[in-house]
Amino acid sequence: MSELKGACIFGQSGGPTSVINASAYGVIATALKNPSITRVLGAEHGIKGVLNDRLFDMGQEDPAELELLKYTPSSALGSCRYKMADPDVDDTDYKRILEIFKKYDVRYFFYNGGNDSMDTCNKISKYMQKVGYECRVMGVPKTIDNDLFGTDHCPGFASAAKYIATSCMEVYQDARVYDTGMVCIIEIMGRHAGWLAGAAALATAYGAGPDLVYLPEVDFDMDQFLADVERIYKEKGNCMVAVSEGIHYADGSFVSEAKTSATDGFGHAQLGGLASLLAQVVKEKTGAKVRGIELSLLQRCGAHLASETDIEEAVMSGMAAVENAVNGITDKMVGFERSYEDGQYVCKTKLLPLTDVANTEKKVPIEWINAAHNGVEKPFIDYVLPLIQGEPKLPKEDSLPRFAKLKKVLVK
Amino acid sequence: MSELKGACIFGQSGGPTSVINASAYGVIATALKNPSITRVLGAEHGIKGVLNDRLFDMGQEDPAELELLKYTPSSALGSCRYKMADPDVDDTDYKRILEIFKKYDVRYFFYNGGNDSMDTCNKISKYMQKVGYECRVMGVPKTIDNDLFGTDHCPGFASAAKYIATSCMEVYQDARVYDTGMVCIIEIMGRHAGWLAGAAALATAYGAGPDLVYLPEVDFDMDQFLADVERIYKEKGNCMVAVSEGIHYADGSFVSEAKTSATDGFGHAQLGGLASLLAQVVKEKTGAKVRGIELSLLQRCGAHLASETDIEEAVMSGMAAVENAVNGITDKMVGFERSYEDGQYVCKTKLLPLTDVANTEKKVPIEWINAAHNGVEKPFIDYVLPLIQGEPKLPKEDSLPRFAKLKKVLVK
Repeated sequence: MSELKGACIFGQSGGPTSVINASAYGVIATALKNPSITRVLGAEHGIKGVLNDRLFDMGQEDPAELELLKYTPSSALGSCRYKMADPDVDDTDYKRILEIFKKYDVRYFFYNGGNDSMDTCNKISKYMQKVGYECRVMGVPKTIDNDLFGTDHCPGFASAAKYIATSCMEVYQDARVYDTGMVCIIEIMGRHAGWLAGAAALATAYGAGPDLVYLPEVDFDMDQFLADVERIYKEKGNCMVAVSEGIHYADGSFVSEAKTSATDGFGHAQLGGLASLLAQVVKEKTGAKVRGIELSLLQRCGAHLASETDIEEAVMSGMAAVENAVNGITDKMVGFERSYEDGQYVCKTKLLPLTDVANTEKKVPIEWINAAHNGVEKPFIDYVLPLIQGEPKLPKEDSLPRFAKLKKVLVK
Repeated sequence: MSELKGACIFGQSGGPTSVINASAYGVIATALKNPSITRVLGAEHGIKGVLNDRLFDMGQEDPAELELLKYTPSSALGSCRYKMADPDVDDTDYKRILEIFKKYDVRYFFYNGGNDSMDTCNKISKYMQKVGYECRVMGVPKTIDNDLFGTDHCPGFASAAKYIATSCMEVYQDARVYDTGMVCIIEIMGRHAGWLAGAAALATAYGAGPDLVYLPEVDFDMDQFLADVERIYKEKGNCMVAVSEGIHYADGSFVSEAKTSATDGFGHAQLGGLASLLAQVVKEKTGAKVRGIELSLLQRCGAHLASETDIEEAVMSGMAAVENAVNGITDKMVGFERSYEDGQYVCKTKLLPLTDVANTEKKVPIEWINAAHNGVEKPFIDYVLPLIQGEPKLPKEDSLPRFAKLKKVLVK
């Protein structure tokens, strides 16, 4: 494979996570050191930054600030949710991207995101191949939802899982202090896959977590749910429930959507508000004191509770994307493969064709969900536990997080 | 002062905090070592445990588990919200308490809580004096609301403040990643006092916090609020708002209560839901994407983010209660006095008459709130900052918190 010299563009796309900037660090720091890469450009708001010619010169950043990206949540360069058209129908965006690539002699394109972002990445890769413009395109995985196909897990998931499990353990202590009893319902992100809601069961495995966990992989039955809650509340005087925001009835309609239609305008417009809807239903049925808690954005940006394993793997995936591209690889996403050496969890990178990854969702295996559809089985716990290990070395200033401050110098 | 020998009872009351168990540790560990105290009893669910003769023998606990109380959130012995009657009207409870005190030869009573709990403590103290039963009664302060009279601050406040500030800094990163803009509204506890909502401004002082902060010390004006949000959203493309759950209109009615009356049964019955109400109003007015986040119980049980200063002071207040009582003091609450030595924050305990403390609320000084009533001034920041310093030495097991596990052996 002959050496390919040129600039690289790196972009972040989709919902942010606690460690997407750690992947950014992996890409940027590795690219800045590599002699084949002449210039490292960061796209403002993902592919939109390319389309709008809004590119930051990452070489002008202070290396110490770049390193702080490892511990800085959310997308430091800005993100986007931008669906690329089918290039056979409308190739306007693709022509524009090619124009920008040519303008800056871009020969490497690294795109960090989830399912939709890998679709973007894949389409750009295929377009560049079609028009014969040599550019190595690599996807870097990211999603708290953990639903990317072909990889053991995704950077971002473990830190959110750890945040959820820890918060559940703490709320468990709090939600049972009175002798009057309480039902506590915790709403967790994950519209189609229940990886995050299932992670709440880690808290249960360590003695202080939800009694019931509902995942979107199986249909939700309100009557069964109420019977479950009532049974446990009668038994224990308390009941803690974790629900995925994406739970749905057998007809496919989201349970959370009932709210919007049933209220007079104060219902949440976004998906969410499920916890308070279920709290209300449980209150009416049981008369119990009920509290609904939505973990909301907190679960995906709680960098102070990130998993150091997740951070290191996020950096590793970014590094691997650059190193493989420089070595001649293109049209792939970096994925993870897990093994155990002397019982110790080991994670290595592997490469997956972008075509396979784009738009395919990986859900929790049905056999990891219990027969009653209100909890997860031990293999789920065994799967998640190694991923959440280690405390982040987040620097603090006056006991508050010191996040990266980038200069974001636009390329002229 | 002659030595008084006898058993002690310790109870926890009111809403739990991240460090109320640290105070419990201070009381219990000190009492267990003191030769004047013959037996250390823990009341199950505060004063209810005394009334119901449900007392734990704290001497039977493993010392290592007791020490873990320093890092375990919520009320390990159980809490209560129990309003004692005026003993001149109905002395049933007081007679029962005296009976239990005599049964176990209780000569020391330590009660850990906020305003209402200090009222309980005060009433019991005065009753015992009136009937001539020698028992030294000491209040140990606790409240995330920081609204106890006569003390510089209260254990529990700083840890909640740190949780709030850190979470705001993280959400700040997340809530501005898209180029489409967003208004983010964070609802914070504090029904009558704005100490906790004000603490969100710590995040702003460190470059990543709310643009607007609304406290219950001043009347809320919805039109002014909407104008504030609209101005900042137009200016910056984003707007982050922190609101106290207790904000109210000039007529005294809670802003959050509008929701309950306006909805068809899905509105929150408890105080709460304010964030989503305001989010909806802002959305209708501005058309912006809006997200409401309620920090809910998380802010008062987030022990992993506790302030080590708060933990140490909570322990100190418990120790001081026991030591002073053994030395002959009674009918007081332990409070804190702040000084600065060579510019370094120093906190010492002081003693306040229970009569003065019971039922008096300390609010944020009006001069610490800005003229526009949508933020706090620097003295507020200077007040809070020393309190949140230091990281807790929370032990973990497999990277999840290892909280205290008490045996809770009931006294026969």
